[in-house]
Amino acid sequence: MATSEATATRIMLAVNQSTIKGYPHASISSRGAFEWTLQKIVRSNTSGFKLLFLHVQVPDEDGFDDMDSIFASPEDFKSMRHRDRARGLHLLEYFVTKCHQIGVASEAWIKKGDPKEVICHEVKRVQPDLLVVGSRGLGPFQRVFVGTVSEFCVKHAECPVVTIKRNPDEAPQDPVDD
Amino acid sequence: MATSEATATRIMLAVNQSTIKGYPHASISSRGAFEWTLQKIVRSNTSGFKLLFLHVQVPDEDGFDDMDSIFASPEDFKSMRHRDRARGLHLLEYFVTKCHQIGVASEAWIKKGDPKEVICHEVKRVQPDLLVVGSRGLGPFQRVFVGTVSEFCVKHAECPVVTIKRNPDEAPQDPVDD
Repeated sequence: MATSEATATRIMLAVNQSTIKGYPHASISSRGAFEWTLQKIVRSNTSGFKLLFLHVQVPDEDGFDDMDSIFASPEDFKSMRHRDRARGLHLLEYFVTKCHQIGVASEAWIKKGDPKEVICHEVKRVQPDLLVVGSRGLGPFQRVFVGTVSEFCVKHAECPVVTIKRNPDEAPQDPVDD
Repeated sequence: MATSEATATRIMLAVNQSTIKGYPHASISSRGAFEWTLQKIVRSNTSGFKLLFLHVQVPDEDGFDDMDSIFASPEDFKSMRHRDRARGLHLLEYFVTKCHQIGVASEAWIKKGDPKEVICHEVKRVQPDLLVVGSRGLGPFQRVFVGTVSEFCVKHAECPVVTIKRNPDEAPQDPVDD
């Protein structure tokens, strides 16, 4: 029963980019959730698990940096979409490369939309054994304004969900940043 | 990093007895949470994990069956306490024996009090890497009256928490039963 390795345990991780300007790649909480999964769950049993990385891009938010940009032609939009895509791939590359290095099977893909809705929809479609989401560990006051993806997923995702709170030592000056 | 087996991943499981009269031992949701932990997390890596079983006995509820009993002497109370203790030990024996059979290290203990409060208190004291709680998967209407230990733990326990919902096929006629 517990020793059957017929099919790997499929763990979905919802990952996002850092909101801190100039900070490359994955958010602090995404990396925390990933490291926790490797250290506490996968451990040395690299063949027993498959990690599924989902990155949801928010259409509006991704265009926010371009407030000052002038979109004068369809090509401008195309290049913005191209850049969004490149950023998303860059993010996922970070996780997939790490998995490859330690010999854990993985898959990664990008979806557009409202993260909490898309994550729950993808859980329904992909049916992982466990969903791991990082969380900034915001207080109740901050949560009201920010909303939390993790709380929504815990309630609505159709699979077991574990929320990994960001290590307080790693929190940036503004806890809303990540 | 992921391959370090220095210290086992410590998973705490909060387990309780079935509420169905005549049904022996562990509740459906406790067993479900335990089986999920073995099959999806521990898998063949039996030396990588240690399971910590906490059973919280509710003082009032445990005496409920004794509504018709007459307590005429201090010995009557003593024998009731003795019987509660025996039931709790019997419950924990089920889990510890299974762990022993498959070679997973385990520990088990009993506490008295309000389960949700005690579980969170014990998490603080024992500091497991993960808390696994079973859940009956009640609808919002039933939850109002029953309250759910799992929701409280997800919010308040100072460690990652995963809730394992009972398989709908296994739900008894009255979903409040377990």
